[in-house]
Amino acid sequence: METIKAGIIGATGYAGSELVRFLSNHPKAKIEMITSESYQGRQFTDIHPQYEGILDFHLESMADIDKHDLDVVFLALPHGVSMEFVKNNAGKSFKIIDLSGDFRLKSPEIYTQWYQLNHVYPEGLEHAAFGLPELFKEDIQHANLVANPGCFPVSAILALAPLVHQQLIDPRHIIIDSKTGVSGAGVKPKETTHFSNVNDNFKAYNLKKHRHTIEIQSVLNKLTSDALHVQFTPHLLPVDRGIFSTCYAFPKKEVDEQQLHKIYKGFYQTSPFVRISQHIPSLKKVRGSNYCDIMVNYDERTNTIIALSAIDNLVKGAAGQAVENMNIMFGLDDRTGLLNVPLQP
Amino acid sequence: METIKAGIIGATGYAGSELVRFLSNHPKAKIEMITSESYQGRQFTDIHPQYEGILDFHLESMADIDKHDLDVVFLALPHGVSMEFVKNNAGKSFKIIDLSGDFRLKSPEIYTQWYQLNHVYPEGLEHAAFGLPELFKEDIQHANLVANPGCFPVSAILALAPLVHQQLIDPRHIIIDSKTGVSGAGVKPKETTHFSNVNDNFKAYNLKKHRHTIEIQSVLNKLTSDALHVQFTPHLLPVDRGIFSTCYAFPKKEVDEQQLHKIYKGFYQTSPFVRISQHIPSLKKVRGSNYCDIMVNYDERTNTIIALSAIDNLVKGAAGQAVENMNIMFGLDDRTGLLNVPLQP
Amino acid sequence: METIKAGIIGATGYAGSELVRFLSNHPKAKIEMITSESYQGRQFTDIHPQYEGILDFHLESMADIDKHDLDVVFLALPHGVSMEFVKNNAGKSFKIIDLSGDFRLKSPEIYTQWYQLNHVYPEGLEHAAFGLPELFKEDIQHANLVANPGCFPVSAILALAPLVHQQLIDPRHIIIDSKTGVSGAGVKPKETTHFSNVNDNFKAYNLKKHRHTIEIQSVLNKLTSDALHVQFTPHLLPVDRGIFSTCYAFPKKEVDEQQLHKIYKGFYQTSPFVRISQHIPSLKKVRGSNYCDIMVNYDERTNTIIALSAIDNLVKGAAGQAVENMNIMFGLDDRTGLLNVPLQP
Amino acid sequence: METIKAGIIGATGYAGSELVRFLSNHPKAKIEMITSESYQGRQFTDIHPQYEGILDFHLESMADIDKHDLDVVFLALPHGVSMEFVKNNAGKSFKIIDLSGDFRLKSPEIYTQWYQLNHVYPEGLEHAAFGLPELFKEDIQHANLVANPGCFPVSAILALAPLVHQQLIDPRHIIIDSKTGVSGAGVKPKETTHFSNVNDNFKAYNLKKHRHTIEIQSVLNKLTSDALHVQFTPHLLPVDRGIFSTCYAFPKKEVDEQQLHKIYKGFYQTSPFVRISQHIPSLKKVRGSNYCDIMVNYDERTNTIIALSAIDNLVKGAAGQAVENMNIMFGLDDRTGLLNVPLQP
Repeated sequence: METIKAGIIGATGYAGSELVRFLSNHPKAKIEMITSESYQGRQFTDIHPQYEGILDFHLESMADIDKHDLDVVFLALPHGVSMEFVKNNAGKSFKIIDLSGDFRLKSPEIYTQWYQLNHVYPEGLEHAAFGLPELFKEDIQHANLVANPGCFPVSAILALAPLVHQQLIDPRHIIIDSKTGVSGAGVKPKETTHFSNVNDNFKAYNLKKHRHTIEIQSVLNKLTSDALHVQFTPHLLPVDRGIFSTCYAFPKKEVDEQQLHKIYKGFYQTSPFVRISQHIPSLKKVRGSNYCDIMVNYDERTNTIIALSAIDNLVKGAAGQAVENMNIMFGLDDRTGLLNVPLQP
Repeated sequence: METIKAGIIGATGYAGSELVRFLSNHPKAKIEMITSESYQGRQFTDIHPQYEGILDFHLESMADIDKHDLDVVFLALPHGVSMEFVKNNAGKSFKIIDLSGDFRLKSPEIYTQWYQLNHVYPEGLEHAAFGLPELFKEDIQHANLVANPGCFPVSAILALAPLVHQQLIDPRHIIIDSKTGVSGAGVKPKETTHFSNVNDNFKAYNLKKHRHTIEIQSVLNKLTSDALHVQFTPHLLPVDRGIFSTCYAFPKKEVDEQQLHKIYKGFYQTSPFVRISQHIPSLKKVRGSNYCDIMVNYDERTNTIIALSAIDNLVKGAAGQAVENMNIMFGLDDRTGLLNVPLQP
Repeated sequence: METIKAGIIGATGYAGSELVRFLSNHPKAKIEMITSESYQGRQFTDIHPQYEGILDFHLESMADIDKHDLDVVFLALPHGVSMEFVKNNAGKSFKIIDLSGDFRLKSPEIYTQWYQLNHVYPEGLEHAAFGLPELFKEDIQHANLVANPGCFPVSAILALAPLVHQQLIDPRHIIIDSKTGVSGAGVKPKETTHFSNVNDNFKAYNLKKHRHTIEIQSVLNKLTSDALHVQFTPHLLPVDRGIFSTCYAFPKKEVDEQQLHKIYKGFYQTSPFVRISQHIPSLKKVRGSNYCDIMVNYDERTNTIIALSAIDNLVKGAAGQAVENMNIMFGLDDRTGLLNVPLQP
Repeated sequence: METIKAGIIGATGYAGSELVRFLSNHPKAKIEMITSESYQGRQFTDIHPQYEGILDFHLESMADIDKHDLDVVFLALPHGVSMEFVKNNAGKSFKIIDLSGDFRLKSPEIYTQWYQLNHVYPEGLEHAAFGLPELFKEDIQHANLVANPGCFPVSAILALAPLVHQQLIDPRHIIIDSKTGVSGAGVKPKETTHFSNVNDNFKAYNLKKHRHTIEIQSVLNKLTSDALHVQFTPHLLPVDRGIFSTCYAFPKKEVDEQQLHKIYKGFYQTSPFVRISQHIPSLKKVRGSNYCDIMVNYDERTNTIIALSAIDNLVKGAAGQAVENMNIMFGLDDRTGLLNVPLQP
């Protein structure tokens, strides 16, 4: 097949810079366009100087999109801006992979409730595939618009999906205790990302109201007839990259750990980036890579299932996942261009 | 009252060094003896060089204990070694505050089950007070032997005690998701504390079998007639000090957040080191200090209570707690010598 | 003597919060007033929540200064603002300790050259004592205005002063390679203090033009008749606190390491916070404390002297130094209220 | 050309694991053998679990080397062990790239002086090429034995080589102040790599006697007729990877910054991994990659040249450099398999 011509819309942030990392080494894709509204006219290396001597790219405005003949467009835009772009470019020949939260929920009402915004393009919600290939590969293959999942949802959904799908657990009491690295908060300095506030520190944040809660819950609900709800608590780790989720659930039936391990192995048999292990996952074992490491445990003493997962929030939780979706949408092997070994130490 | 003459038995580790930090500035106590079996004959500053120019102390062996006329002895020894010491020194005139796990459980059988050791001094188990003054101040006042609590138990028990005491929660499903700094693993280099394995990393450890599980459960069970069990999962943070516990419980009765906050405020009204707040706690807000910060939340959407706590594991979780116990045993104000402001940043 | 009534002008930053840490536990001083122009009317704990339950203080404006009967005022203000305050309050009965750079240089022209500002109160420059008691204790004792030294200058001047004072080194080639923790950059989030830019990273900054260069050079020049100049390069460390300076100089005479060590020991014989050691200093050995640790080395192979120093930039490099100056100005023992043990780990 | 069959001797450490990272994705090389004396018979993933699901490799002993038909062998062995291996395998058909210090110096006497070992294979010293292609590419092309340079030497030599080669600087006073991440200390836990001793800390180490001193000095001396000596001081940073060197030198002739920049640009014109920039380098801008970033500055005020460099110690300072050497020895483009984008953040 021919080279896929890709555009990256909104390259100021970490997702944009990671998209370039994967696409610039991708054997079947070529970056045709990189945009940044705030830096247009300047060089890509002005915002991401680690690319000095590696990549020369002039930043354009997203308004210039029609100057290029693109096959796929990655949106690394804030939510709200993304749906405007999708609406304005509906019907064009390129496929869209949106990394924002704008097309992840199915209902515009629920979107408004959690995002405090009216949805400007509800048609998109209907057509968008949820870009988690472990669960929705077929949808993705046929989609023109893919909603790339949120970083926490990738880690939590993959950790819990086999239990929910098999209807093994009490749907009313599912606890997701997640810990994320700071890069998830973006490239822009804020009080919460100020080194002196984060280093040697740890805390929970956004208690009870993080938007990823509803995304996790909605997607898991697609896997079961039970009316399931999830408790999700994010915490901020003094690390650059990674999300570790510790998920607790209570079995409805008799289970044992060996059997759970087998169920997980089976469930993810054809998923090249999920590694089911009997060792405890850790952030550094996946750093820089597209893997999601999962371990499932059962504590007989308390009759509790504990599922652990680790991902790199910028890769399997964002840019790597997006490139994986591109691969699937264009009929390539899922792994093309994504076989980075995790960077350890 | 006269100056309390104190001995520190086993000063090689961080608990020993922190005991010296608090006792060397304590207005009513004086360090008479510091021991280290591995470094006896050398100087205290040889193992803790930050004390250069501050404290000159010749390290002795614990066998030299009778050369001193001590009022109180702090045991910063490994479990197993502590109970031997207590047995060998039973009936002597000094009081003992044991920082190991040897006298925290009431039953020698349960001790053996979780510590894989026979208890050599079960009489001690009967007489020992559990050194958490927020719950057992009266016991501590009259005790000759105090079992200073484990670091995770301090953080978890204080976060959950008001709920358990009021019988507000389902006793079968209590989740404690704890995150600790590395100093809890001790002064000795190991693979798990190797910088390259910890920095920029995060993982769970000791799943289902950490010894503090039974300590938390046993102490909480004293507060209620319900047969309660707890799920406890420790994780390792890339920080020096601190434990953050995120505790989940399911109410048996109707509750609301404001009411829970009041219950906590009331429960800890006379506890000078517990700070009940409506802000999310964080490790740096307690670093180096004896405070335990707690916030209680209720999520109506899922009918779940989330109690958060933060302590410095070496202070409220070890040495500071021990000095607080000394203050109480000797009739001093609980806060004497412990009013350090947390070190932030 | 009576209690010293102290005002802290500008408590939004880390220096302000550290001043409160030392003064709130100081046996001879009492905080009467804390100001913050941006937070006036609010509580001190709103900006520094680690003080919750420890200190209740209503923030005032610096315009309210005459409502209080103060003995000493600490200025934790930006440069430029400090000199306005000093000018406006000249002749009042309180003494002033200024933590900014406004009164550290003697010449208004040189001030303008390095600070790009005209000096509004050159009289102050003449009268101000440079608040480094190891060198200028007598000046400080008699001063009404003390210019508290910059953080890098404390570390560099103390490391080099004995060499310069003894005219042992070539005055044209003095290299100061300094590494600082992030708290030196202040409380306000910026790109340079964004966690993702600092963590697991290291770099030099402000090459050839850092304002502390001229401060170090001017002060060292007071110790010698040689016309001395210094090369100063700051670097940013991914740590909270501390400055480590590696200073290189070339001897003019024959020297040996043992002799240099003795010279340093002698030079700082009466300085309670300078610890001359034959062990390599480290940041954690001084963290949270007012000590400056120094080691001097001589490499015969290359005929080079290497002097190493470590301080906590917020303590000996700012607030602790300021309180030490207060002690001296009011005839107290230098160490009063400053005997914190370094926090390690 | 045919695929290069490679053996990795000694894969327990970080250099071994990084060699696998680069060779497993190398388009022209194939790993035929991985050895570990301590883990032989086990799986490579037992020591480097980040490779789970990526690479299945059975660890052999180096004694099994003749069972394989190898083109090149990478030695990631301790010094002392390396020279035994080279001696024992002299005359075999494979080329050797040695990552230890055993063949970097030309004189067995100087080797003994700095390594406290007699050299068992002085013939090797004569024939070995020093594996820094920016200076010795032709030697490497023709060598059967390449001594891969030390990590500090790569950073220091590349920063200083243009100055030395042009005889621009005073050869008696060259200061190299280097700061390294912890991975340079290896995979084995020690007191100096214990998280609690490193995190939030910083210090110098191995003052005046680090073995890389003589390596830097010997190599620079090859570039000039001056008798040059260097002062080298290593420091330990609380980061995983990277070396930052700040080098100070004093010009013998009149120079200016623009001219120096041009000299550097010219000197490294054909070196694909050296990036000469007018921005200050930083560790994260090279993390995980084979780049060496260099900036040269001149301070007129003090007549001092300051050259800054940054590398990833495990890549350009070890495994990446070794693979680059392999490429050159086998006539490939230097960059083959080495075009990783630096991992930032």
